[in-house]
Amino acid sequence: MSTEHRQLAVVSLSGGMDSTTLLAHYAAAEPAPRLLAVSVDYGQRHVRELDSARAVAAHYRAEHLVVDLRAVGGLLSGSALTDPSVEVPEGHYAWETMKATVVPNRNMILASVLVGLAVARRARVVALGMHAGDHAVYPDCRPEFVTALARCAAVANEGFDPPAVEAPFVHLTKTDIARRGAELAAPLHLSWSCYRGGEVHCGVCGTCYERREAFRDAGLPDPTAYADSTTTFEAVTP
Amino acid sequence: MSTEHRQLAVVSLSGGMDSTTLLAHYAAAEPAPRLLAVSVDYGQRHVRELDSARAVAAHYRAEHLVVDLRAVGGLLSGSALTDPSVEVPEGHYAWETMKATVVPNRNMILASVLVGLAVARRARVVALGMHAGDHAVYPDCRPEFVTALARCAAVANEGFDPPAVEAPFVHLTKTDIARRGAELAAPLHLSWSCYRGGEVHCGVCGTCYERREAFRDAGLPDPTAYADSTTTFEAVTP
Repeated sequence: MSTEHRQLAVVSLSGGMDSTTLLAHYAAAEPAPRLLAVSVDYGQRHVRELDSARAVAAHYRAEHLVVDLRAVGGLLSGSALTDPSVEVPEGHYAWETMKATVVPNRNMILASVLVGLAVARRARVVALGMHAGDHAVYPDCRPEFVTALARCAAVANEGFDPPAVEAPFVHLTKTDIARRGAELAAPLHLSWSCYRGGEVHCGVCGTCYERREAFRDAGLPDPTAYADSTTTFEAVTP
Repeated sequence: MSTEHRQLAVVSLSGGMDSTTLLAHYAAAEPAPRLLAVSVDYGQRHVRELDSARAVAAHYRAEHLVVDLRAVGGLLSGSALTDPSVEVPEGHYAWETMKATVVPNRNMILASVLVGLAVARRARVVALGMHAGDHAVYPDCRPEFVTALARCAAVANEGFDPPAVEAPFVHLTKTDIARRGAELAAPLHLSWSCYRGGEVHCGVCGTCYERREAFRDAGLPDPTAYADSTTTFEAVTP
């Protein structure tokens, strides 16, 4: 089958370990689809992850687009991820502290753009990287949201060959994803999690903790360089 | 009641006659909400309508935001509304010709951004201006889409006080909207419909025909200056 006729998958690629494993998942599918990896610049503080996204897309020879939504990110202020005046919480994700990292309606906005791209490019599927570890804090990472989103995308584009919307990791934990990434030989060493966006992972923000825990609990070597990898999880857990 | 404590309505305002009437509808509500009118610049050829949107918002003393989605519009090419290489069809809307004016998933993208704004600003409602005249061509103007969208927005923002999503004109024809606009004394003379975006309405593109027909069929004087208002509707109808 020629390259042009293989079906296209539009894969959300933030550059974190979940979406890196997601791209690995679709790259390993049989028959392998063509891959369009899409990253969004919504003015996030950890723009360093966009460099990781580029490296991961290149690893899989996927086409890669960065969608500039900084104008939207600027409007939806009040989140620690876009507003420099809001402090990024440390330690484990907990409802009250991590609420500060919510960009209002982020996944619906992101998914809507990906669905638009998929319709324009006649893609078969839009793939999103939500996982069970985020369900408590982020309503737009839950299975109910994926279902409502898929329905909305289908109805919005009826007659225009709408893509399926898939979130194959929605029931997996971060630890499951670390394992799945290792099985698929996903380039997790290229991925980026830290919300602080320095030269190396800080090791103590919420997502760095999650990342350290995932590798530890999966019994896998952690390929990440951390500025601080000695502070114990328990020490700063609320 | 002080201005600060009145409830906020986020109203989609393209600057056309439907959304101008929509803003009039919410301005006339009892008790009157505060109004945040939102326009989107997605690189449309008829950017002239953004000037109309500003004038209409000013008429109602509404706060007005223009969201810059040109980066997204550029990605979703293939539509006559964003791609200068695609010709804008003339005459009545008909399935095959007007398919060329579809920006893939436009209303889902637009609505997602408005919902994000509404959550960030703690608004009670997001108002959209779809009407029955567009149902045949645009799936994202149909009642089924509004229902699926409202459900998706509610689930995506559960626990964050999600707004209701309303489309009060979804069962009205364009002629009904012209009548409703006249009843509400909406400033329809400030609104802009023409997809060609010249100094005055061309009078012969699909939306100009619709506009002329709506006033004619409502038995109302048409406040619009047209470059060509003599070509009969029947002459170019497919």
